[in-house]
Amino acid sequence: MHMVLFVAAIIYILILILYELDYSIIVVGDEILIGQVQDTNSGYIARHLTPYGWQAVNIRAVADDGQAIFDAIDEAFVHSNVVLMTGGLGPTKDDITKPTLCRYFGGELVYDQATARNVESIVAGRHLKLNDYTRAQAMVPSSCRVIQNQCGTAPLMWFEHDGKVLVSMPGVPYEAETMLVREVIPQLMAHFCDNVDIEFRHLMVVGIIESALAMELDEWERKLPEGIHLAYLPQPGIIHLRLTGLSTDREWLKSEMDRLGLELRERLGDHVVADEDLPLAGIVGNMLRDKGLTLATAESCTGGNIAHEITAIAGSSEYFIGSVVSYHRRVKEQQLGVSASDIDHYGVVSQSVAEQMAAGVCRLLGTDCAVATTGVAGPGGGSVDTPVGTVWMAARCGNKVLSQCKHIPGHRQRVIARATNEALLLLLSLLRQV
Amino acid sequence: MHMVLFVAAIIYILILILYELDYSIIVVGDEILIGQVQDTNSGYIARHLTPYGWQAVNIRAVADDGQAIFDAIDEAFVHSNVVLMTGGLGPTKDDITKPTLCRYFGGELVYDQATARNVESIVAGRHLKLNDYTRAQAMVPSSCRVIQNQCGTAPLMWFEHDGKVLVSMPGVPYEAETMLVREVIPQLMAHFCDNVDIEFRHLMVVGIIESALAMELDEWERKLPEGIHLAYLPQPGIIHLRLTGLSTDREWLKSEMDRLGLELRERLGDHVVADEDLPLAGIVGNMLRDKGLTLATAESCTGGNIAHEITAIAGSSEYFIGSVVSYHRRVKEQQLGVSASDIDHYGVVSQSVAEQMAAGVCRLLGTDCAVATTGVAGPGGGSVDTPVGTVWMAARCGNKVLSQCKHIPGHRQRVIARATNEALLLLLSLLRQV
Repeated sequence: MHMVLFVAAIIYILILILYELDYSIIVVGDEILIGQVQDTNSGYIARHLTPYGWQAVNIRAVADDGQAIFDAIDEAFVHSNVVLMTGGLGPTKDDITKPTLCRYFGGELVYDQATARNVESIVAGRHLKLNDYTRAQAMVPSSCRVIQNQCGTAPLMWFEHDGKVLVSMPGVPYEAETMLVREVIPQLMAHFCDNVDIEFRHLMVVGIIESALAMELDEWERKLPEGIHLAYLPQPGIIHLRLTGLSTDREWLKSEMDRLGLELRERLGDHVVADEDLPLAGIVGNMLRDKGLTLATAESCTGGNIAHEITAIAGSSEYFIGSVVSYHRRVKEQQLGVSASDIDHYGVVSQSVAEQMAAGVCRLLGTDCAVATTGVAGPGGGSVDTPVGTVWMAARCGNKVLSQCKHIPGHRQRVIARATNEALLLLLSLLRQV
Repeated sequence: MHMVLFVAAIIYILILILYELDYSIIVVGDEILIGQVQDTNSGYIARHLTPYGWQAVNIRAVADDGQAIFDAIDEAFVHSNVVLMTGGLGPTKDDITKPTLCRYFGGELVYDQATARNVESIVAGRHLKLNDYTRAQAMVPSSCRVIQNQCGTAPLMWFEHDGKVLVSMPGVPYEAETMLVREVIPQLMAHFCDNVDIEFRHLMVVGIIESALAMELDEWERKLPEGIHLAYLPQPGIIHLRLTGLSTDREWLKSEMDRLGLELRERLGDHVVADEDLPLAGIVGNMLRDKGLTLATAESCTGGNIAHEITAIAGSSEYFIGSVVSYHRRVKEQQLGVSASDIDHYGVVSQSVAEQMAAGVCRLLGTDCAVATTGVAGPGGGSVDTPVGTVWMAARCGNKVLSQCKHIPGHRQRVIARATNEALLLLLSLLRQV
């Protein structure tokens, strides 16, 4: 056993020495610098690459300007041997980025048959006609290897020079993210981490704060074999634990990761609510599916956002029946059957109203479970007794009910987002009891 | 008149020469580089500063590492005289950023009475107790001027050196954004643009594509006096036109901007749907309020997201009554009164079902208007006739109905977001007719 650990340690150290896993991100686009568009590309690139052991050392946004792009590439290669670039491509921008890449890596723009065919098939699939703009997408620097874009017309381009690699990707987030996962990450791993296997295990943990969890796992974590490490990724009310293993010994890695994943799971017992990386609404959804329960929501201050988060999960139609957004008092009374005198007596933002909303929507839509919210999202509508940010929420399952009041600081959008999160956590607590 | 224009031109050129309005953004935080948190700070900083004539030349994310922060500041000052930095503050990170700022700008960490009082009052307002962590927030570099944080405990710090300015702001988005608008932008304007007034006029325009709009306005735009310029900010289905004016002559500026705003409005006639910068749901909301109409939504594939966007607008309770999310067929039939035989005959994703949903929710919740969606968000559930991304939507107002079918490419979240946008645009079209 010690011999195995020793060999694994040596292999891991070799990996770290042989493979430069630092990288930089360059996001190209005037629209980012003027704040018209929020850059999301750098975020998901980092989110997808980090688990593979890649570390972003530098993220940078630059204008659609040849010299700015050139300088940014030059500077990025000081920090790392790999640069992932998004944007600056597409019909109206091609004239800046592609010539700049030619200037940096050499070569000239050439017409690429395979890219032209890909552009044609993408355009045809959208029932559109090819025009000069889309046709121009087939012009690529002769110094690159094209990775065909399976979701759009702008080709991905892989440049190599002196052991350095730059991958240019389109700026459209859903195109770039899809291609990153399907092609870019596998190709980066093959290029830089030849023969290295990677395995992940995930646990989503509730009911324990991060510092207590870290104390609980401290000893266990320090005994992890080389090449395997644990990351804490706390989210509001829930902690994502990710175990990452790297090794050239595939068999050993798989069995070690299985063993350690199981150990971790046993150690954390009831705190574990999922063994995959899922958003809160996905964890709740899986529990409902596993227990064969159906769900409805009755929302006042969250205005449909809980239903939105639940239905953002693919397959949610298996357990989610529907929702009543009862913004007006009349809807609370007439559709959800909330007692008018209770509203008058306790106030519309009260435990009684939240619980009656949950019961009412279960009855109306014929579901097993429900979650309900009533509160003051602001900026107006607050009072001394019920200041802005006050939210009562209730979760119901069969005859069991949990309810709580939260005071959420911040602006309207934040109150709505946090109330949504708290309501889902409350439902999760209840589902763990039934 | 020509003399006035000439003077305005000279003043504008002087402004450009005298005031360096380039700036850089540095976002500090390991959580950004590993993709755990999506940086939104750089986006809204740029969005708020751009209209004032400030131009971001460089946006950069760096780790919670003293040397990385030091180098990033050094490099940012090569690009611009102003650096706005967010993050790297707060209880657990103070030990890195503040000493680095001392190293860069000189001075040492000192206990600041005013900051201590602010921290105490913020902590008390949240019904929490002061601990060593929060108390440490009152330690600030002696080389800075503190701007008290009105929303949280981490103080904002203004550093000046050789005509260069760095403002360090907390990383929590709602704290930093609030303080940016309330304090940082006014102080930057006072510091760098002494005596310069700035005025904006906004128009939201629909029913015309950007290139046609640009052609329509080309001649008018070229005649704009110096110091006043027009920006096109296209969004899906809607174009935001922003007129920005800078001048030291306040009277002249105001009257010119009034005159030009009116001219632009007259020129674009019926295309104008709002004369302030508003999200689509806000434009729809104002129209409903102006016409004294009430609204409900009936949502299938959008799963409550339309209701969520409508209720994200403050004051929406004046016109928004509620919503039925009819995810399950049963809810469409029983609550919304959609004909079961029509569902069988036309399919659940059909014009007939969308229109019956809109009519049904108007009847159920007693509203004047409604918008409804039914579609396939994917990834499952598609068929040859109704592939993933197909969405039927209907808008109803009184007895008038508009409906349309859209084919939206992309993943589930994108289909939901775009269908929400298209449904709101459809409702807007209808509201313009009634």
